[in-house]
Amino acid sequence: MLPFARVTIIGLGLIGSSLARGIRATMPTVRVTGHDANDEVREIARRIDLCDDVSDTAGASVTDADLVILCVPVGAMGAVAAEIAEELPSEAIISDVGGSKESVIAALREVLPHATIVPGHPVAGTEYSGPESGFATLFRGRWCILTPEEHTEEAAVIRMRSFWETLGANVEIMTPKHHDLVLAVTSHVPHLIAYSIVGTASDLETVTQSEVIKFSAGGFRDFTRIAASDPTMWRDVFLNNREAVLEILQRLTEDVTMLQRAIRWGDGDALFDLFTRTRAIRRSIIEQGQDDPAPDFGRTHT
Amino acid sequence: MLPFARVTIIGLGLIGSSLARGIRATMPTVRVTGHDANDEVREIARRIDLCDDVSDTAGASVTDADLVILCVPVGAMGAVAAEIAEELPSEAIISDVGGSKESVIAALREVLPHATIVPGHPVAGTEYSGPESGFATLFRGRWCILTPEEHTEEAAVIRMRSFWETLGANVEIMTPKHHDLVLAVTSHVPHLIAYSIVGTASDLETVTQSEVIKFSAGGFRDFTRIAASDPTMWRDVFLNNREAVLEILQRLTEDVTMLQRAIRWGDGDALFDLFTRTRAIRRSIIEQGQDDPAPDFGRTHT
Repeated sequence: MLPFARVTIIGLGLIGSSLARGIRATMPTVRVTGHDANDEVREIARRIDLCDDVSDTAGASVTDADLVILCVPVGAMGAVAAEIAEELPSEAIISDVGGSKESVIAALREVLPHATIVPGHPVAGTEYSGPESGFATLFRGRWCILTPEEHTEEAAVIRMRSFWETLGANVEIMTPKHHDLVLAVTSHVPHLIAYSIVGTASDLETVTQSEVIKFSAGGFRDFTRIAASDPTMWRDVFLNNREAVLEILQRLTEDVTMLQRAIRWGDGDALFDLFTRTRAIRRSIIEQGQDDPAPDFGRTHT
Repeated sequence: MLPFARVTIIGLGLIGSSLARGIRATMPTVRVTGHDANDEVREIARRIDLCDDVSDTAGASVTDADLVILCVPVGAMGAVAAEIAEELPSEAIISDVGGSKESVIAALREVLPHATIVPGHPVAGTEYSGPESGFATLFRGRWCILTPEEHTEEAAVIRMRSFWETLGANVEIMTPKHHDLVLAVTSHVPHLIAYSIVGTASDLETVTQSEVIKFSAGGFRDFTRIAASDPTMWRDVFLNNREAVLEILQRLTEDVTMLQRAIRWGDGDALFDLFTRTRAIRRSIIEQGQDDPAPDFGRTHT
């Protein structure tokens, strides 16, 4: 028994198009309808046969859905929800894949006060964007976090869990507030720092951009991958998870200042202790299947 | 005509063992002698037939060498150079692979005042350490920086250039001081920030270490790779390139503070502008063959 029969995906970028492909691969009898606000994206989606049907308006895409998943930047969630509010079947579940959850729930609740909302966030992605960058196995072995409200009926949460598990994901349930803090640590602040370090390097007057590029294999290039992620999506994440991001950033700043002082005063033991501790965390991530054990992420060295 | 006939490698970790393998692969007539201060490493090197000969002392390893390459942490360079000072043939070239260059030159010059020294730094590596982690193609397509002193004879620099080019590397020549600044940007500060962010995440009392590991695919795991690099090597780099690291770290701190303020005040345009600019740098790195264009570094998604 599949949890849904007719799924609508609004927003056909990396995540939306990976969902469409993943559903095709794991739930082939499910009818998938897609919509994207961008004409060109809809045209590509039709050309590459991403969905069973691509609708020209958000409203038309949801009329017979039993699950609607919003895959748009978190700053656009409220507007898209408003567009579908009239056509959304009363028994449909509405979900999303946004990177911040308190703000998304507030935005959706404002225009859909009576809908069954089960917000979600698959912690997966690549640095590429758009309908052609998605792939069916993106969520396999990754975690999807669901953040239902207190009053959400259990049956709806169970169906969403089953949906993500069928796609190959592990599911965890937590409060929206805790989600926002956890993701500030594991995703948002890392992205902010990566964006920042790439910006700093390219702005220096004493080291040329050409040198930064040539010698990037010393570590810098690792940061450029996540600093190549979608600018609109990430702008919205930072504006919508402000408190948690600023809190974690403050902690990081304190810790960097401590390291700065250790370097200035030549405290090698403090550096060595930290560098040994961080190595153990990498090992745990690999042991738990959350990263590739291959050296250098498996980059080709031929 | 190969630039050298008898090469000695002191320190058989990731870089030293990659050099041994690379020489075997590209210059099979060259005789390679190895030495490592660690008994166990020498035993492994013999067992896996890494070199033509493994010497039990540093002095014995250099007696007939025409090139000696020191592949030890930068804090150990001076001590190793002192160990070989008596046995080093007067016509041999001495080089190294250390990540900081002003400090290494000073350390080598102190104990080898008359030697022909051509310091080098191949900007390549993985997060793994030890004699079994090296591979012959590590330097292929990467850059090796040579930092000769002003009085160094041109012929010695040409031979070192030829050596690295035969291994498949591109060679660039710059002053030690400029090297140290460039690498602070492209390698040292990125490593410091990666170590720091992994440390911060694992110290939080509001987010568990288990959560950090589970949800690391949101970006955090990218930082854990370089934060798994060799602790001794990196402690030494920071202690020996202090000025440049502190200077670049100060610039980064200013830029992070600017972003922090943009988030606090909701300045989405400032965020969007930076995030667009950083995307272009990733493209240049890929165009210039310094990273893999495959999504997610080519990590497997199966």
